Amino acid sequence: MSEKLQVAVAGIGRMGMRHARHFATLTPRAELIAAELDAAKKEFVNVRTYKDYEQMLAQEKTLQAVVVASATTVHAEQAIKAIERGLHVLCEKPISTSPEISQSVVDAYNTSIKKFPNQKVICGFSRRFDASYRDAHRRMANGDIGTPSVFRSQTCDKLDPSGFFVAYAEFSGGIFVDCSIHDIDLALWFFGENSKVKSVTAIGITAVQPDLRKHNDRDNALGIIEFYGGKIAQLYCSRMMAAGQEDCTEIFGTNGKVAINTQPQLNLVNLYEPTGIRREIPSDYYGRFREAFITEANEFTASCLDNTPPPLRLDSAVRAVTIGCALQESLITGKKIEFDESGKRVEASKL
Amino acid sequence: MSEKLQVAVAGIGRMGMRHARHFATLTPRAELIAAELDAAKKEFVNVRTYKDYEQMLAQEKTLQAVVVASATTVHAEQAIKAIERGLHVLCEKPISTSPEISQSVVDAYNTSIKKFPNQKVICGFSRRFDASYRDAHRRMANGDIGTPSVFRSQTCDKLDPSGFFVAYAEFSGGIFVDCSIHDIDLALWFFGENSKVKSVTAIGITAVQPDLRKHNDRDNALGIIEFYGGKIAQLYCSRMMAAGQEDCTEIFGTNGKVAINTQPQLNLVNLYEPTGIRREIPSDYYGRFREAFITEANEFTASCLDNTPPPLRLDSAVRAVTIGCALQESLITGKKIEFDESGKRVEASKL
Amino acid sequence: MSEKLQVAVAGIGRMGMRHARHFATLTPRAELIAAELDAAKKEFVNVRTYKDYEQMLAQEKTLQAVVVASATTVHAEQAIKAIERGLHVLCEKPISTSPEISQSVVDAYNTSIKKFPNQKVICGFSRRFDASYRDAHRRMANGDIGTPSVFRSQTCDKLDPSGFFVAYAEFSGGIFVDCSIHDIDLALWFFGENSKVKSVTAIGITAVQPDLRKHNDRDNALGIIEFYGGKIAQLYCSRMMAAGQEDCTEIFGTNGKVAINTQPQLNLVNLYEPTGIRREIPSDYYGRFREAFITEANEFTASCLDNTPPPLRLDSAVRAVTIGCALQESLITGKKIEFDESGKRVEASKL
Amino acid sequence: MSEKLQVAVAGIGRMGMRHARHFATLTPRAELIAAELDAAKKEFVNVRTYKDYEQMLAQEKTLQAVVVASATTVHAEQAIKAIERGLHVLCEKPISTSPEISQSVVDAYNTSIKKFPNQKVICGFSRRFDASYRDAHRRMANGDIGTPSVFRSQTCDKLDPSGFFVAYAEFSGGIFVDCSIHDIDLALWFFGENSKVKSVTAIGITAVQPDLRKHNDRDNALGIIEFYGGKIAQLYCSRMMAAGQEDCTEIFGTNGKVAINTQPQLNLVNLYEPTGIRREIPSDYYGRFREAFITEANEFTASCLDNTPPPLRLDSAVRAVTIGCALQESLITGKKIEFDESGKRVEASKL
Repeated sequence: MSEKLQVAVAGIGRMGMRHARHFATLTPRAELIAAELDAAKKEFVNVRTYKDYEQMLAQEKTLQAVVVASATTVHAEQAIKAIERGLHVLCEKPISTSPEISQSVVDAYNTSIKKFPNQKVICGFSRRFDASYRDAHRRMANGDIGTPSVFRSQTCDKLDPSGFFVAYAEFSGGIFVDCSIHDIDLALWFFGENSKVKSVTAIGITAVQPDLRKHNDRDNALGIIEFYGGKIAQLYCSRMMAAGQEDCTEIFGTNGKVAINTQPQLNLVNLYEPTGIRREIPSDYYGRFREAFITEANEFTASCLDNTPPPLRLDSAVRAVTIGCALQESLITGKKIEFDESGKRVEASKL
Repeated sequence: MSEKLQVAVAGIGRMGMRHARHFATLTPRAELIAAELDAAKKEFVNVRTYKDYEQMLAQEKTLQAVVVASATTVHAEQAIKAIERGLHVLCEKPISTSPEISQSVVDAYNTSIKKFPNQKVICGFSRRFDASYRDAHRRMANGDIGTPSVFRSQTCDKLDPSGFFVAYAEFSGGIFVDCSIHDIDLALWFFGENSKVKSVTAIGITAVQPDLRKHNDRDNALGIIEFYGGKIAQLYCSRMMAAGQEDCTEIFGTNGKVAINTQPQLNLVNLYEPTGIRREIPSDYYGRFREAFITEANEFTASCLDNTPPPLRLDSAVRAVTIGCALQESLITGKKIEFDESGKRVEASKL
Repeated sequence: MSEKLQVAVAGIGRMGMRHARHFATLTPRAELIAAELDAAKKEFVNVRTYKDYEQMLAQEKTLQAVVVASATTVHAEQAIKAIERGLHVLCEKPISTSPEISQSVVDAYNTSIKKFPNQKVICGFSRRFDASYRDAHRRMANGDIGTPSVFRSQTCDKLDPSGFFVAYAEFSGGIFVDCSIHDIDLALWFFGENSKVKSVTAIGITAVQPDLRKHNDRDNALGIIEFYGGKIAQLYCSRMMAAGQEDCTEIFGTNGKVAINTQPQLNLVNLYEPTGIRREIPSDYYGRFREAFITEANEFTASCLDNTPPPLRLDSAVRAVTIGCALQESLITGKKIEFDESGKRVEASKL
Repeated sequence: MSEKLQVAVAGIGRMGMRHARHFATLTPRAELIAAELDAAKKEFVNVRTYKDYEQMLAQEKTLQAVVVASATTVHAEQAIKAIERGLHVLCEKPISTSPEISQSVVDAYNTSIKKFPNQKVICGFSRRFDASYRDAHRRMANGDIGTPSVFRSQTCDKLDPSGFFVAYAEFSGGIFVDCSIHDIDLALWFFGENSKVKSVTAIGITAVQPDLRKHNDRDNALGIIEFYGGKIAQLYCSRMMAAGQEDCTEIFGTNGKVAINTQPQLNLVNLYEPTGIRREIPSDYYGRFREAFITEANEFTASCLDNTPPPLRLDSAVRAVTIGCALQESLITGKKIEFDESGKRVEASKL
């Protein structure tokens, strides 16, 4: 058996191809041995490709780890199949657009780990691997800003006038589950992963793509989250940022604030022109977080090979989906949604 | 009669003293002739001072304009007394912490102006006079960002551990009425002053000053506002910013964004130290908006002397107070508050 | 005699008109009573205007102070005439393009002050009144950066394709005397006004306006200055900045650096557009330093009225011109120019 | 023979170890097979280590490329030995502190390439591989700033009070050859690699480490370079930056300016504290340019394997050393040094 982690990638779409590259060439301790779809064939000559996910699992006898980067709708199913075989799994976010299905993956893992005690399963919240977010978290954890109390985060995608997002919305789970899931995960990371939600409220509009309403989605939405214990969070997600990808986060503490990417930039260049000073920003999420994805691949690999704790908790991903779904529901119904301290919904009639 | 506008200032507290200075020395076309309280005596030797507001109005026969900068609780009453005498009035914000009382000032003005057709009455929303906000508004109005659709604004005061804000909260109307009133006014300015609110929701905490709860107030609060016509706004107000005053605003349009003060600074200095690069920010609201207050004094004066339209509409101030009060109510009750298109509250039972 | 300083402005060109406005309307303790040229007549109805400078001095019996803002070629002559009458003088920079003539103004002042011991004469180095430069100087003087050792400063004017600067160069003294004089003055201010120059060297080009060579001038030039005592300075002056006026300065000390305006901006607005994030910068020197000029007017006035020390030393202006002329000479001859510790030129043959 | 480039690293000091890591784990198409010194043994278990450079060359039969990262004094000698064996060479900068010795490496390459026509030899000017410098160069080459005319660049190392730099100066060639060599290379890259120097002048001080004078060195130095064809450059190099590594560059063109890293930062985090807003910057050159070094390793590898043109010209490195040495000489002698258009020194007596 090789010293390198033997990895397969499922779903060679845009993100799958990126994961494949990271594991094939930028993760020294991993080896990409198989991939679910043909798209990989041209680029990775030594990688075996499959049209069927289960077939791949069955035939790749040395396989140790699977990266699930297929459509969100099959994340959970594919993850569970790999989990049941004792494979390590890195599942793209979100695990599912349903809290219950997300939980079923955690349940499968909890069962499987009894049999495969060294098994690692994580959901790829890439921002957790970003150097700036980590620096900010370290400072916060170090007490540099006092008690973190207010959280603001936004995920603004570049305007894509092609209509892509309308078709995409049919299965994405909605803008809060698809985009804000990262911000929600960060809120849990900065406030503490055991933070309990008291209420969520959301509002939204379709400023550029009214057809999103067909799928109960919006192109711009605002949400607020109340946590038990005196912490609050503010979210903004959008599909219409003109300048590019603009993802920024601020954590306000009782003694200071830490801000991440509130002055976005593509690189260190400023152009002085007759119209002023201009800088560009990344055009998409990958442009902003490429390094984080590579770190994710390397740390996941190290955790599998060295049997060290995984870099993030799987159950936290279920909480993020649960909050995202509640925000999405509030966005559509116009109702505030409340929870008791055990995490159960409080019925409106009892309010 | 002098060529200079004859001005009196009522309520020489911190802001009153500043207004007095602006009109006395930095408004070439105005002359400060009287002031309500003794504090002015030392500084302005030629200004007559009074202990009683009505006495001042009665005795100053050449008086043309009054700046009301007293405690918020008497703003409306003092403004109305001046209005009924046909005097021009610049009233500090908010007119009142009550929408009804605020409206009574508008009503008084509407009556008075029939008798004094050149009379000017404005509420001093100083940010409207700030060069950066004006530049942003001009760009927006020029279509540079497409249709303005999402508004984000925050007013964060420097942490004052003295307990001042607890005592202050008894009469301030609450953090949304006191702080966010500026952000609300900006939302109306950028979205259109006739914008109609559909709903407001707010949440908040007392992270540093739990005693604020005695006065139904919070030290950090988040609010979201839904307008009819597909526009939404996000507010954050706080009394605990460590670094100083941080007031910033962003308007997201369908084709661009304009951001004001998202990289706050005291001046153009950066200090490179062993711990990194550091810059300071203004320590209070006045440090950020001093120039705007001076512009306000000059433009109000010009409007009075030249009988030109006042730089902002008075009725808009009532709408801002109404929205601020609804947010404050939501903050305390935990309920979302909804309005129909005529501006009437929709009862919860009918939702 | 009025309580307000009675001021006249000589030379109502672009800068003269600005000075006139500052003293007429933005300097509460001053009163503009006279002006040399007709241009002022329309704007300042109560100001007496003259076509002849000496006539103005002769007829204005209550005159106390003169602002000399005429062409550089007559600065010294006009200043001396006012000095000899015992008037306070604020002379625009440079006093002269000749060190000897500049010195003659200092000499006249030194003679006159024996007769008029309260007389104030300053040369208007406006950056000394700028809030950011003052903040930087205060930090430096406070020891925050250790011993200031290296100085970098640049004055870059916006590209003016009209050919204005070619005609202007005939009398300007050259780009080092006209533009860099401010940077040189700052070097003296930050390194100590008694700093002694050891050598200067300069190089330059005509990148956009080759006709400048007719007047022995360049449109871009670099200079380095060596001071006795282990301090060095680097200058860049240019007439071709596309984006606007870009004047920045850095002082590197043994324990830190203070940087002024290294991130230039017109105001606090950033515009997010499909091409990136853009901000504008001031289009000219006045756009950057308007507030400093107003402070200059007020502090000069206060110094005259209260008989307090003037805000800057007159002899320092002669040193700045001397250094500027040496740099300009080096720029044209290609020779390094050296000085002994007494300030005398060291002949090349003796090197 | 392996599909991967077989690489050895000579001189496993600080930079050597970094190169070893880049080729061992971050350059997918390369394989690190040997290293000159023992330090590598612990970290790279499969890499053969040698105490003698020539022995390594002799014994490693499959070796294809050598990275020379030893002390500057042996760069040229080691490079030539590898060149003569037909090996590809990536030599750390500078090739030598002597222009003549640097030229001898180029000569050896020119001879060798007749025998080994696919051989690649480059000098590692890492900034050429930096994404921001490349973006800036692309914009410049695209005409976005008009004709590049004025160049400003600085390399400021973090203050190291240990005395390291004094010992280091004995062999470094001096601050212009050691630090500014990067800036000089950039000037050649942006102005055109065939640019001819007309003159150089330099001045400097020892602000923090007077012992540097023992080795004819300084801790802060300013230089200006005049090129034939109307282009000028300004350099600043320093060993006393408090905040960390600050390397920035600006290219001023006739129609715009491109600025690289004029707002230095460690990452995207800003910390809001009671003393203001603070960000950190990289503490050393590697912190700023790590990604560039990795790109360098990958592009050098690709050039060797695919026989494509090397990413930069070797002769350019000799020109950079020549200019650096002239600046260093001027720094010490105080003389301006001039060259005719053929590149020959113009004797002072003939000036």
